[in-house]
Amino acid sequence: MSEFGKSGIVKRTIERADAKAVERLGKSGVATVHEAQGRTGLMKPYMRPVWPGAAVSGTAVTVLAHPGDNWMLHVAAEMIKPGDVVVVAVTTDNDDGMFGDLLATSFRARGGLGLVIDAGARDARTLAEMKFPVWSKAIHAKGTVKATVGSVNVPIVCAGMLVNPGDAIVADDDGVVVVPRERANAVADAAEAREKNEESKRARLAAGELGLDLYAMREPLAKAGLKYID
Amino acid sequence: MSEFGKSGIVKRTIERADAKAVERLGKSGVATVHEAQGRTGLMKPYMRPVWPGAAVSGTAVTVLAHPGDNWMLHVAAEMIKPGDVVVVAVTTDNDDGMFGDLLATSFRARGGLGLVIDAGARDARTLAEMKFPVWSKAIHAKGTVKATVGSVNVPIVCAGMLVNPGDAIVADDDGVVVVPRERANAVADAAEAREKNEESKRARLAAGELGLDLYAMREPLAKAGLKYID
Amino acid sequence: MSEFGKSGIVKRTIERADAKAVERLGKSGVATVHEAQGRTGLMKPYMRPVWPGAAVSGTAVTVLAHPGDNWMLHVAAEMIKPGDVVVVAVTTDNDDGMFGDLLATSFRARGGLGLVIDAGARDARTLAEMKFPVWSKAIHAKGTVKATVGSVNVPIVCAGMLVNPGDAIVADDDGVVVVPRERANAVADAAEAREKNEESKRARLAAGELGLDLYAMREPLAKAGLKYID
Amino acid sequence: MSEFGKSGIVKRTIERADAKAVERLGKSGVATVHEAQGRTGLMKPYMRPVWPGAAVSGTAVTVLAHPGDNWMLHVAAEMIKPGDVVVVAVTTDNDDGMFGDLLATSFRARGGLGLVIDAGARDARTLAEMKFPVWSKAIHAKGTVKATVGSVNVPIVCAGMLVNPGDAIVADDDGVVVVPRERANAVADAAEAREKNEESKRARLAAGELGLDLYAMREPLAKAGLKYID
Amino acid sequence: MSEFGKSGIVKRTIERADAKAVERLGKSGVATVHEAQGRTGLMKPYMRPVWPGAAVSGTAVTVLAHPGDNWMLHVAAEMIKPGDVVVVAVTTDNDDGMFGDLLATSFRARGGLGLVIDAGARDARTLAEMKFPVWSKAIHAKGTVKATVGSVNVPIVCAGMLVNPGDAIVADDDGVVVVPRERANAVADAAEAREKNEESKRARLAAGELGLDLYAMREPLAKAGLKYID
Amino acid sequence: MSEFGKSGIVKRTIERADAKAVERLGKSGVATVHEAQGRTGLMKPYMRPVWPGAAVSGTAVTVLAHPGDNWMLHVAAEMIKPGDVVVVAVTTDNDDGMFGDLLATSFRARGGLGLVIDAGARDARTLAEMKFPVWSKAIHAKGTVKATVGSVNVPIVCAGMLVNPGDAIVADDDGVVVVPRERANAVADAAEAREKNEESKRARLAAGELGLDLYAMREPLAKAGLKYID
Repeated sequence: MSEFGKSGIVKRTIERADAKAVERLGKSGVATVHEAQGRTGLMKPYMRPVWPGAAVSGTAVTVLAHPGDNWMLHVAAEMIKPGDVVVVAVTTDNDDGMFGDLLATSFRARGGLGLVIDAGARDARTLAEMKFPVWSKAIHAKGTVKATVGSVNVPIVCAGMLVNPGDAIVADDDGVVVVPRERANAVADAAEAREKNEESKRARLAAGELGLDLYAMREPLAKAGLKYID
Repeated sequence: MSEFGKSGIVKRTIERADAKAVERLGKSGVATVHEAQGRTGLMKPYMRPVWPGAAVSGTAVTVLAHPGDNWMLHVAAEMIKPGDVVVVAVTTDNDDGMFGDLLATSFRARGGLGLVIDAGARDARTLAEMKFPVWSKAIHAKGTVKATVGSVNVPIVCAGMLVNPGDAIVADDDGVVVVPRERANAVADAAEAREKNEESKRARLAAGELGLDLYAMREPLAKAGLKYID
Repeated sequence: MSEFGKSGIVKRTIERADAKAVERLGKSGVATVHEAQGRTGLMKPYMRPVWPGAAVSGTAVTVLAHPGDNWMLHVAAEMIKPGDVVVVAVTTDNDDGMFGDLLATSFRARGGLGLVIDAGARDARTLAEMKFPVWSKAIHAKGTVKATVGSVNVPIVCAGMLVNPGDAIVADDDGVVVVPRERANAVADAAEAREKNEESKRARLAAGELGLDLYAMREPLAKAGLKYID
Repeated sequence: MSEFGKSGIVKRTIERADAKAVERLGKSGVATVHEAQGRTGLMKPYMRPVWPGAAVSGTAVTVLAHPGDNWMLHVAAEMIKPGDVVVVAVTTDNDDGMFGDLLATSFRARGGLGLVIDAGARDARTLAEMKFPVWSKAIHAKGTVKATVGSVNVPIVCAGMLVNPGDAIVADDDGVVVVPRERANAVADAAEAREKNEESKRARLAAGELGLDLYAMREPLAKAGLKYID
Repeated sequence: MSEFGKSGIVKRTIERADAKAVERLGKSGVATVHEAQGRTGLMKPYMRPVWPGAAVSGTAVTVLAHPGDNWMLHVAAEMIKPGDVVVVAVTTDNDDGMFGDLLATSFRARGGLGLVIDAGARDARTLAEMKFPVWSKAIHAKGTVKATVGSVNVPIVCAGMLVNPGDAIVADDDGVVVVPRERANAVADAAEAREKNEESKRARLAAGELGLDLYAMREPLAKAGLKYID
Repeated sequence: MSEFGKSGIVKRTIERADAKAVERLGKSGVATVHEAQGRTGLMKPYMRPVWPGAAVSGTAVTVLAHPGDNWMLHVAAEMIKPGDVVVVAVTTDNDDGMFGDLLATSFRARGGLGLVIDAGARDARTLAEMKFPVWSKAIHAKGTVKATVGSVNVPIVCAGMLVNPGDAIVADDDGVVVVPRERANAVADAAEAREKNEESKRARLAAGELGLDLYAMREPLAKAGLKYID
């Protein structure tokens, strides 16, 4: 953790979460994965997909950038391996459009699957046409400079959540969740178990059974003092 | 009004706005209904549909919940009658994803038509596929606990607007409007009259006639001091 | 500039940016135009299209309105010439739905191509069906009064950007950019040059070449102190 | 409740909460009163005193105003009786400075004790010098018009909370709380009991006793699964 | 206006508003000056003094800076003449602490009277001890780089308001107002007239006379449809 | 880092930053410390002192709480050692008043020096009278429940910044900065060196010397393209 927040470093070699586990996490989706790891790992809800229906799972290449400066995204491109998702934090709140279709083209050519950025993105329509998935705080055409170095592959805080390089990233219409690298397999197992369990519940609820009965809530509710009146 | 904001109560029996009136209000839509009742009843504009094109009209089953706690939504499910829309207020600002596809399945099985929640919703894509209409302050995967009792069918303030159980709720792409139960028929009448009136205006405006002339604004504008210069 | 922010004036005669230049700017799009004029002219990122895919370029008819009052939009309708986009500022922050399908019908009948408003719009679905492009701060059904005069065709600040009547306005999924009238041709030239230049870069990036090499960033990055570690 | 949100009405005669109870509530303060009535009645935290140390308790004269229009505050002045606090809601979000030192002078001359406004206030320094207590959403010099009628002494929602004319209002550095008129005495009793209880707790906590023991939390925490590790 | 928003320029020679007029405007204060120039010129209400009681009037030296970069504030220092207030806009939303006690020391040594910045300030306590008046969007210790040139003495938009170099700036507890250079004398006259007029009103209101009568509002209110009920 | 964000754990034994270093950091203050550690460690600017002039430096006891639930603050009290500052993160955005004068009394009795909370605080006036320093996101009287377990002394993200138990915390009017435990001495050295350096600069700037000359900026500015015009 000694490199947390430090500028001027690019770490070439990182360990990545298991590719199979990452794929399984993607199938479970953000809401299920978040629950499966004990309701942790979720970024703030202002992170929204640039185009509806976007979904991705991959391993994090992390970037620490300065406001209005996207230099480090070019540096990050070289660090991408197939299956990676680039995750960008900025040293201060900033909405500038640090990422557009050219960088998306470059990232994809290197095997990059998507982008999560606690700042702005632009070329929204082209990103949608390319089906390149991006989650951002804003859509903003504001161009950036290339003047101040940040870091690549150091631990960062992105949209309120700690991300270490190589962590599993799952993102869809419900937001973005981070799974620590070493827990990817365990969380994937828990997520699949949870899904199976939900399937049977869905059928019973669809048949009109109440959650009150399905989850045996009536007694604890009464104990907690809930009163029914007419 | 003595139960306003009180926790720990579920009211089983409520009077609902006239079903026919509610249906007519839905056809008029939010903007027209809001105008027709004297520009009142509108929730704050941060309430947005989870999927575009969602539209609903129904009678309110109200819920008062605690932040990060969706216990009372399960309690509310049992109170739903066909034609109801569940309206949820939280005792403090909160974005957690209190509602997802399982609760949507349950609500629909009971005859529930939709949800209006001054908090977050999740499973956004599944809700869209189910065509279950939801208006919320946020889309957030954040899971909730079931630990503290709130109330069902007490008067609440949701997104800045007072809602009594049984009130008519109309929601579409323009937001959410509340019509007090006893005024539903009168407002439906006024809304339909307004629509008819707008139809003829639309044709004249489309033909190039100016609102300045159509609404006879030139004289009051001059009186208010408006000056034309070249 | 002496009329900046002044209420009670309608300027009938304004000079408009060259129609051909405006059309060319529209083809380049917001992000490119913003870069081409030295990263200036962009409105704040809270300005979003009411329906996805909306895009327009035109010449500004400017409006200064009061909060909750859309009287001046009717006055503006008469000033519209084919190819115009109406741009509305409010004297204070306000989200009310000052513009809906009737005004859109009227604007279109006069040759108006779209609307940019630092406030709310309503009838969102109808605007989408009409394909009438609108950028706004909010979608809100809140109706407005017609009680206080503002101005038409005075210089305004809309969403943080200065707009003079007759300026070129370009808007799409990436936001809204303003090009001063007298610079429209020069900026259109610069934008097209930029696009051509990007085309060749896109191909090289798609082939896997890195921006680091394409833009010769390695040396300046090293000079700025960037260190690679393993 | 039939007058909720309705414009164009001034209700001359209202019942007010018991003056003695209101005074006792003021002594207990906002935080204690809020707890004493079951954690209800609190306005949103964006309501802040214009000058530090302001504190007031009184009976509500309610006002419904339009954005950027303070006409109804002049109407309200005539309805003030000694011991009243004027509470202002606006039909939409608005920060304009609807209230300044002249209105404060007028309100005070009529016996008004303070103001709570879900909008802006101005003349901040003079209000502080006058020691006239005001809670507002913003401090803003923005002047207002007098063009559109609202209402006085109808039920309103102010900063997220329902206020009926005559309700008890308590405000201090912790915010603003509303106590329904008919509950003022009971809540004052509960608040005083709570205070007495807190006094003894404060002494024990100051002596180093832990809340864990004072409130017997160790067992429920263990039951809830809390684990201590080294 | 051709230099609006342009980076890379420092204009050495500017015309300043009349010093006497600026002093008179300062005595009238923000709220009165804003009213006196027809309710125009006010910056957004998020601009707050760093320490309570701060008040200043002066002539604008304008700065356009980039996010997280305070290089141009050093450039601006050389352009300051006695009686100036430096007004800083940033090319995008940014809260970084661009200004602290060292720059305040430097500005004061050059005759600068204060700072208005649409970004952050730091060293809040020292600024208060120095009695150097600053209005900002945030107080934030975040340090900045010196990497990208902006401009000095070009027209800017600061907190939603157009500011030309040499304009009169008045700031106090109520916010910040801009008076165009050439209007400074006329607005100072109008402000003083307004103050005199208010003085007599204050006395009548303090004696219990109602604004309803003082401003003859009863008839227009009745015409506008206001109804009194019991 | 394996305990990051995990609920249900209390870590009894933590290593704390060197007390002497923490004291020295406090003397340097937030802005200097932030610069001295390479412009890192700063929490978001919405963290503000509850009373002006508050300042503290100490070692972090960390708390992870649930929205609207302050149970873990009572658990944390037992973990406090003299010289500690309690730092509270919540699992989701929340403004509730989790901390008031009773907990302050308890924390102080255990040797706690202050509180940093990414949520609300209450009893603002009493906290000021007690001179107990608190930084929070909001002042809100909203009471909380004690129903769901979180954690004490796990790594957390508070107001956008990673905090490990035992880290040095420095807070004053400029905000809150975190110094990793093992870097406390080195950063204290760097901060003091920086202060000394600033002292001599302050004198030269006060004498009218320009930062342009003091920092030798004229040449780099010219290289970056800055042009002076008349």
